[in-house]
Amino acid sequence: MLTLADLNRMDMPAFEAAIGPVFERAPWVAAAVHARRPFATISGLHDAMMDAVRTAPRESQLAFLHNHPDLAGKAARLGAITDDSKREQAGAGLDRLSDEQFSRFHLLNEAYRARFGFPFIICVRRHTRDSILSQFERRLTHDAAAEFETALQEISYITRLRLVTRVAGEGMPRVDGRLSTHVLDIHAGRPAVGMAIELYELSGGQFYSIVTTVTNADGRTDQPLIGDRPLPIGRYELRFAVGDHYRSRDVPSGDPPFLDVVPLRFSIAEPEGHYHVPLLCTPWSYSTYRGS
Amino acid sequence: MLTLADLNRMDMPAFEAAIGPVFERAPWVAAAVHARRPFATISGLHDAMMDAVRTAPRESQLAFLHNHPDLAGKAARLGAITDDSKREQAGAGLDRLSDEQFSRFHLLNEAYRARFGFPFIICVRRHTRDSILSQFERRLTHDAAAEFETALQEISYITRLRLVTRVAGEGMPRVDGRLSTHVLDIHAGRPAVGMAIELYELSGGQFYSIVTTVTNADGRTDQPLIGDRPLPIGRYELRFAVGDHYRSRDVPSGDPPFLDVVPLRFSIAEPEGHYHVPLLCTPWSYSTYRGS
Amino acid sequence: MLTLADLNRMDMPAFEAAIGPVFERAPWVAAAVHARRPFATISGLHDAMMDAVRTAPRESQLAFLHNHPDLAGKAARLGAITDDSKREQAGAGLDRLSDEQFSRFHLLNEAYRARFGFPFIICVRRHTRDSILSQFERRLTHDAAAEFETALQEISYITRLRLVTRVAGEGMPRVDGRLSTHVLDIHAGRPAVGMAIELYELSGGQFYSIVTTVTNADGRTDQPLIGDRPLPIGRYELRFAVGDHYRSRDVPSGDPPFLDVVPLRFSIAEPEGHYHVPLLCTPWSYSTYRGS
Amino acid sequence: MLTLADLNRMDMPAFEAAIGPVFERAPWVAAAVHARRPFATISGLHDAMMDAVRTAPRESQLAFLHNHPDLAGKAARLGAITDDSKREQAGAGLDRLSDEQFSRFHLLNEAYRARFGFPFIICVRRHTRDSILSQFERRLTHDAAAEFETALQEISYITRLRLVTRVAGEGMPRVDGRLSTHVLDIHAGRPAVGMAIELYELSGGQFYSIVTTVTNADGRTDQPLIGDRPLPIGRYELRFAVGDHYRSRDVPSGDPPFLDVVPLRFSIAEPEGHYHVPLLCTPWSYSTYRGS
Repeated sequence: MLTLADLNRMDMPAFEAAIGPVFERAPWVAAAVHARRPFATISGLHDAMMDAVRTAPRESQLAFLHNHPDLAGKAARLGAITDDSKREQAGAGLDRLSDEQFSRFHLLNEAYRARFGFPFIICVRRHTRDSILSQFERRLTHDAAAEFETALQEISYITRLRLVTRVAGEGMPRVDGRLSTHVLDIHAGRPAVGMAIELYELSGGQFYSIVTTVTNADGRTDQPLIGDRPLPIGRYELRFAVGDHYRSRDVPSGDPPFLDVVPLRFSIAEPEGHYHVPLLCTPWSYSTYRGS
Repeated sequence: MLTLADLNRMDMPAFEAAIGPVFERAPWVAAAVHARRPFATISGLHDAMMDAVRTAPRESQLAFLHNHPDLAGKAARLGAITDDSKREQAGAGLDRLSDEQFSRFHLLNEAYRARFGFPFIICVRRHTRDSILSQFERRLTHDAAAEFETALQEISYITRLRLVTRVAGEGMPRVDGRLSTHVLDIHAGRPAVGMAIELYELSGGQFYSIVTTVTNADGRTDQPLIGDRPLPIGRYELRFAVGDHYRSRDVPSGDPPFLDVVPLRFSIAEPEGHYHVPLLCTPWSYSTYRGS
Repeated sequence: MLTLADLNRMDMPAFEAAIGPVFERAPWVAAAVHARRPFATISGLHDAMMDAVRTAPRESQLAFLHNHPDLAGKAARLGAITDDSKREQAGAGLDRLSDEQFSRFHLLNEAYRARFGFPFIICVRRHTRDSILSQFERRLTHDAAAEFETALQEISYITRLRLVTRVAGEGMPRVDGRLSTHVLDIHAGRPAVGMAIELYELSGGQFYSIVTTVTNADGRTDQPLIGDRPLPIGRYELRFAVGDHYRSRDVPSGDPPFLDVVPLRFSIAEPEGHYHVPLLCTPWSYSTYRGS
Repeated sequence: MLTLADLNRMDMPAFEAAIGPVFERAPWVAAAVHARRPFATISGLHDAMMDAVRTAPRESQLAFLHNHPDLAGKAARLGAITDDSKREQAGAGLDRLSDEQFSRFHLLNEAYRARFGFPFIICVRRHTRDSILSQFERRLTHDAAAEFETALQEISYITRLRLVTRVAGEGMPRVDGRLSTHVLDIHAGRPAVGMAIELYELSGGQFYSIVTTVTNADGRTDQPLIGDRPLPIGRYELRFAVGDHYRSRDVPSGDPPFLDVVPLRFSIAEPEGHYHVPLLCTPWSYSTYRGS
């Protein structure tokens, strides 16, 4: 990975080669800021690039928006999109849609283009499938000016994420969130050790398993449930094997046990936030809260 | 409905007509206790009838066990079982099985008969589908003597329930359980009024909706979620529309809201018990416990 | 006790004798409403009497206010006040003040009379000592009109309470509150039975024991902690012998136990309200909330 | 402070001067282990010194026990004890006893000496005043052999603490505990920032304020409530200014507020343990638990 110092020393061709791809098929954005080197921070560099977009002639802006592929569109299915776009769409599961879901995306894409004249742009790494669809529907009700602004905001999110994978240095923008948990066995007055946990994403009425893990000696997980990336906006369910925990400790709790698999269902609204969702349990009770 | 006083005055034919059907195709049980009138309590009457079964010759006992229909068996599908049995099996959903489930019951029935020589008898009103199947599997591991005892115990449960629908009087045995809930909005320090609640039974990996209701001015439901009957042993999920509750009160809680539909998953192990499963909630936390 | 029907049939002298004392040394209030018989409800009768006070000439109103004794004043110490006043002041502990507290009341009484020209009137049955003092200080900042209204409101509270002890009938005003508790042992999944509980009032930095009781088979107390009277506004502490409970059940919880006596400290602000203050506990955790 | 490496290189006189005072008036203990250098860990050094005590002739052991001052005894009042003992006793407040408390200690000291023939020895840094007294009473019931063992165990605690203040190096024994808290405002779904907290020790029916602090941006305190020392065994109360917190945020909660100062009362039983005692609160509810 490049350092910001490296970048600040580069001539125009090298500079454009290095960070041109950050803006989809728009190397001119990188070119436009070359003269403003040196940049003190990565955030400063990104702000300068977004300024270049915002102050470009309307025509260039629209051409730039047009260069973005449809979400889950035919171009994506046929592979005719940039590698960055491909990876991003795959990360949200958009490459594994049923025919019905594909049709729904197709119709929404058509409606959106018809209304605004450019493709629907969203930073898919910040959303679950469900959230992309609800954003689609919500943004179709915008007026043209508001939606143009929203599209630029999404481009800012997309390009910020692409930039930080290419250049490291001072003043990195905050792009990662964190989802963590902690299980306290308040029957025993100790962290619950070795309890199985599974995290699911809820999309389209289905539960998609994302993480399977187990609590460590402190009742936490060795790795955050989600970390080092934006938390996709959407609905989740954490399931804890509370029944197994007490069964293995010979604590009587009924047959079948009053609590077996305990689900905690919650939503994430801030992709760059920290969500701590702990479980306090006995064989007969449990509670959760948004912690810190 | 008859009173115990009426029954105590009846001659043999009337007595047998009145409570003979309580024991499946075994009017001799009623006949055997006629001479022991008057009965002071319904429980006393039922104990006497079970005594008659327990002290009958082995041959009569086995004939009696044989008179019971297979669970979800062909006889049931073809309608060749008593009305009581039909109603009881339908109550547990055994009349609406998929072909696969029907086959599973068929295989278990065969295995059980092969091992013990009489049909699998269980008081279905005290069980969910899942619990019937797990009992089936557990009881197939019993030895003959233990299983004979278990079958009689189930007959005691079945007949107790049949008896109390036919005769009223002093000393009614406790046959009903109660499942209730209560929602406290600890953000507002008040009961949560008008919150939608849905109760599901979990069987075979499916959620079956049992009750749809809404909280009243005290945060409770006007009727118990389940009452005036045994609580079927099994797994349940209560879902509370917490997100709608706070949305309608303009309490900000994220977009999407941190908590939307809150599921509480628990099991019932005591059909004649009282299960109180309350919810304490804020837009950012919730807890539950087995209350009283 | 009289019934409203009895009262509605009384001639003037009997009527005045019966309910004249409800308004302190002001039998004219009863006399003024005699002609408005019959009254359909106790609330209606009380409203009529308050109307008579509100529409009396200013002079009579002031004379009436002047007829009230100072709170914890010399008249009270010397016994020269009505029996009703004596009982009411004693109920709030105003007859057992230290010399320092007595001096403080004396100074406040003087200041109040100097500012408003009549004695400080408050329905002492609705307040603890602390609350009376804080009301005293707050009301000393009122302007004359607001304070005159406040004094009448307090007279309404006082007389409502005096009326309902003399006459029973339809439409009784709500004058009683209720304070209750409930202890759930969520370690065992059952109500905590036989747990010692003590309720204290906090006034002047001291804890005054009000109630000593024990939980019954349902984890509740046989009687409400406070009931059949207004709940005095003020601060309280409930103490639960959680350590003894688990010690007697051989549940290990540390030496000394992590939780021994658990205090719940809360305030009452609505004398006619229902305060339910439950405790959910394990040897290692507890929670409380304003329930219903 | 010395390092273990320095110590390992010392000749006998320097070695004895450096760590001789660790064992009260018994430099022979240090002398006895000089030949066993080099020590790989501080724990190993301490174990060797305790071995020297345990294997010394009975006579030397008793002389060593006799060299310890009475707790809160006349020697302490007159200053005729070692500086280490003085500091340790003062840390537990034993230098600020009332005459009554002083008499009680005096009587217990006499009784203990009469029974066991040596002074009562306890590692006061691991106890509150209350806990010292309850240990005194409990140990007076021991038989001589058990009590001799207990006295040596306490000497081990005392000397371990003295040793780690003089020598640093590998394998430090764990001598410090930690008491921490965390306040989550589950009404707002955020840590409670700027909430005043006060920690009290309960001894002899009195509350002694130990720490006054305030929550930081994460709802925690910048420093642990107690840290870098053993946690004294005993009873504590944490008080949280919950009422002020919500008042300053204009959240209505009654007048007076339902919750104002919230006390959490708990005990510490493991001086080298970590006690995390968090508060989850709304204006109408709170909970706590032993966390981690």
